[in-house]
Amino acid sequence: MAAAEIGKQDNGGITRLPFSEEERAVKELAAAFMQEAGLTVREDAAGNLIGRKEGKHPEAPVIMVGSHLDTVVNGGGFDGALGVLAGIEALHSMNERGIWTDHPIEVVAFTNEETTRFPNAMIGSRGMTGALTEADLQQKDGQGTTLQQAMRHAGYDPEAIPQAIRTEGEIKAYVELHIEQGKILEARGLSVGVVEAIYSQLGDKFILEGESGHAGTTPMQLRNDALMAAAEVMGAIEQEARMAGNVATIGQLRVFPGGLNIIPGKVEFTLDLRHTGDEARDAFERKLIGLAERICEQRGIKLTVHNLFRNSGAPCEGWIREAIGAACSSAGLEAYELISGAGHDAMHMQKLCPIGMIFVRSRNGLSHNPEEYSSPEDCGDGAEVLCRTLLKLSSMTNE
Amino acid sequence: MAAAEIGKQDNGGITRLPFSEEERAVKELAAAFMQEAGLTVREDAAGNLIGRKEGKHPEAPVIMVGSHLDTVVNGGGFDGALGVLAGIEALHSMNERGIWTDHPIEVVAFTNEETTRFPNAMIGSRGMTGALTEADLQQKDGQGTTLQQAMRHAGYDPEAIPQAIRTEGEIKAYVELHIEQGKILEARGLSVGVVEAIYSQLGDKFILEGESGHAGTTPMQLRNDALMAAAEVMGAIEQEARMAGNVATIGQLRVFPGGLNIIPGKVEFTLDLRHTGDEARDAFERKLIGLAERICEQRGIKLTVHNLFRNSGAPCEGWIREAIGAACSSAGLEAYELISGAGHDAMHMQKLCPIGMIFVRSRNGLSHNPEEYSSPEDCGDGAEVLCRTLLKLSSMTNE
Repeated sequence: MAAAEIGKQDNGGITRLPFSEEERAVKELAAAFMQEAGLTVREDAAGNLIGRKEGKHPEAPVIMVGSHLDTVVNGGGFDGALGVLAGIEALHSMNERGIWTDHPIEVVAFTNEETTRFPNAMIGSRGMTGALTEADLQQKDGQGTTLQQAMRHAGYDPEAIPQAIRTEGEIKAYVELHIEQGKILEARGLSVGVVEAIYSQLGDKFILEGESGHAGTTPMQLRNDALMAAAEVMGAIEQEARMAGNVATIGQLRVFPGGLNIIPGKVEFTLDLRHTGDEARDAFERKLIGLAERICEQRGIKLTVHNLFRNSGAPCEGWIREAIGAACSSAGLEAYELISGAGHDAMHMQKLCPIGMIFVRSRNGLSHNPEEYSSPEDCGDGAEVLCRTLLKLSSMTNE
Repeated sequence: MAAAEIGKQDNGGITRLPFSEEERAVKELAAAFMQEAGLTVREDAAGNLIGRKEGKHPEAPVIMVGSHLDTVVNGGGFDGALGVLAGIEALHSMNERGIWTDHPIEVVAFTNEETTRFPNAMIGSRGMTGALTEADLQQKDGQGTTLQQAMRHAGYDPEAIPQAIRTEGEIKAYVELHIEQGKILEARGLSVGVVEAIYSQLGDKFILEGESGHAGTTPMQLRNDALMAAAEVMGAIEQEARMAGNVATIGQLRVFPGGLNIIPGKVEFTLDLRHTGDEARDAFERKLIGLAERICEQRGIKLTVHNLFRNSGAPCEGWIREAIGAACSSAGLEAYELISGAGHDAMHMQKLCPIGMIFVRSRNGLSHNPEEYSSPEDCGDGAEVLCRTLLKLSSMTNE
């Protein structure tokens, strides 16, 4: 709640853009919490704030836990911040109880996770995995400031970013607690969930070309109505997605020529498709395009599909999911598995080490919104599961 | 073909706006044809050109045949003109053969049928039926010229329009030959068809309100996707229209908020509905709204429907349809009945007398387009059927 006061707007929303005064202030608060928790605090060259609790074997690979502290414009107080603060709280609790783990544990607040200021974001986690490019540094915000300039202005040396890179083997596991930003846990009456994977995503544009005509003089059976074909395609996509348990979204649709009494000759719509893996996503895309092709062929409609983008997804590691599931059970909670529809820093950390994620229930599924909320009880359940997970992962017993 | 040279544009399209030089020129050509056909030619106060062939009983109600000579911008040479010229040709042929009918026959070229210059059009037929209002005269074209001013400029006296009114009982029947402007006759391989009725029309706006959400984090079963609901509603409308043999068209559709990765929270679309009669049209509208309501209720979508307009239709009179059908049969043609999806002057003449219409096949169903075309053979078949129909209607035998 103290962190949620930083960047607070008149309407109750929170704005903490990356490399801003507000992000600096919330990092300072988090650093103070880290010190209270007995952690050694440092900031890496990419701008990630890191608190370390030493282990019995200082050279053993680290267990990393974290999330981000930046927000979108007019966002909420839980997206990102909850994961960082829950990680600090877990280590604070271990310290209070005098727990001394085999592996060292680091809690990290990644910088610039949100795409709000710079479109190609997740700067902190990409900086840590060595995935930042010169092009990333030259991307501009709405005011024309490059990421490079913004970092310099905030006191960082962009030339030094490679020093933030961690190598494979340095980190045993990365665990991220995050609010769900969806309604699944709420619908199931659960405070906490185990993330199975972060969705792969793609965007396609479907173009359906039929023949426009007079709404009065062209009987239904002589039409090549692009919109009616699109309606059938949309229905088939919805049905397939429901059956497969996937999500498929048609968010944009335009009709041409768009006259009240003119049969639509052309329709363009976008498809947003997410899946547990890149291959499964692409196979599902092929299935949907195949369905659309059959529908369009029957209706005398020409179909063209252009890909707009493909973002790789990330499966969560089996033994980390098991550790989180066991932590849920030992805390008296159901170990319910669900998919993350949104992207997270964990997606990038996967290049360096196995990952796992814990979701905390979001009220009404809202996020990126001042109404974003998770109850103290749910946040407590999440921190409890996170702490038990970290204890299990940082133990060398059964390794 | 001579008429089609008047108003011809560089791209082959024809533009003869009402009360223009081009309309005046084509009327003069038609008047010359009327004189060649032995008719008495006059123009009424509304601007309708009328050629009369006297009958054996000059006081008997007249058989009227006609259509219009104005065109849309960049239109074709057959819409309207074919009906006027076929009427003149039929009377010319009777004259050549020395046929002297019981009833007088008048061929009329109505002025300003198209909505292109003035939105509330059919000025000539409405002038003849007494349906023109002061508001009609004050409507403006794209240059801000009122209809009243345009008529004055073309040499008419708008104050005198009531003199054009014909009274009930003065006209026994009105028959209009027109190009189909659709594909039904072409699909059936017929040159000519008998019109059963002119469609009633209405326009509605459907507003579907659901809930927008994140395309990644909201599973299909927790969505209130307004576009997916709209797709199902559109499918149901198409299926009902097909089963009922009606036409229903969704020509405009907008999605809100319209982001690729945002579940649509709101959709607006228009419905253009046509039917053989006003009551049947409204009953069909209620049925479709009922279907939409059930679909939206199941999907947790709020549905609102606003009516935009209702235009009354016109059934064609049974005994005139029979006369046209008999004329088809005697000319060796199938008497195939179909509905007129577009509006025609006959719609207004119906207030004065029973009406009938003959359709001539349109190539590819095109109209209001430079590609508009009906073959000389098809136009000949139409004129033949029209002539035989006029002979039957103008005879007092069996009356």
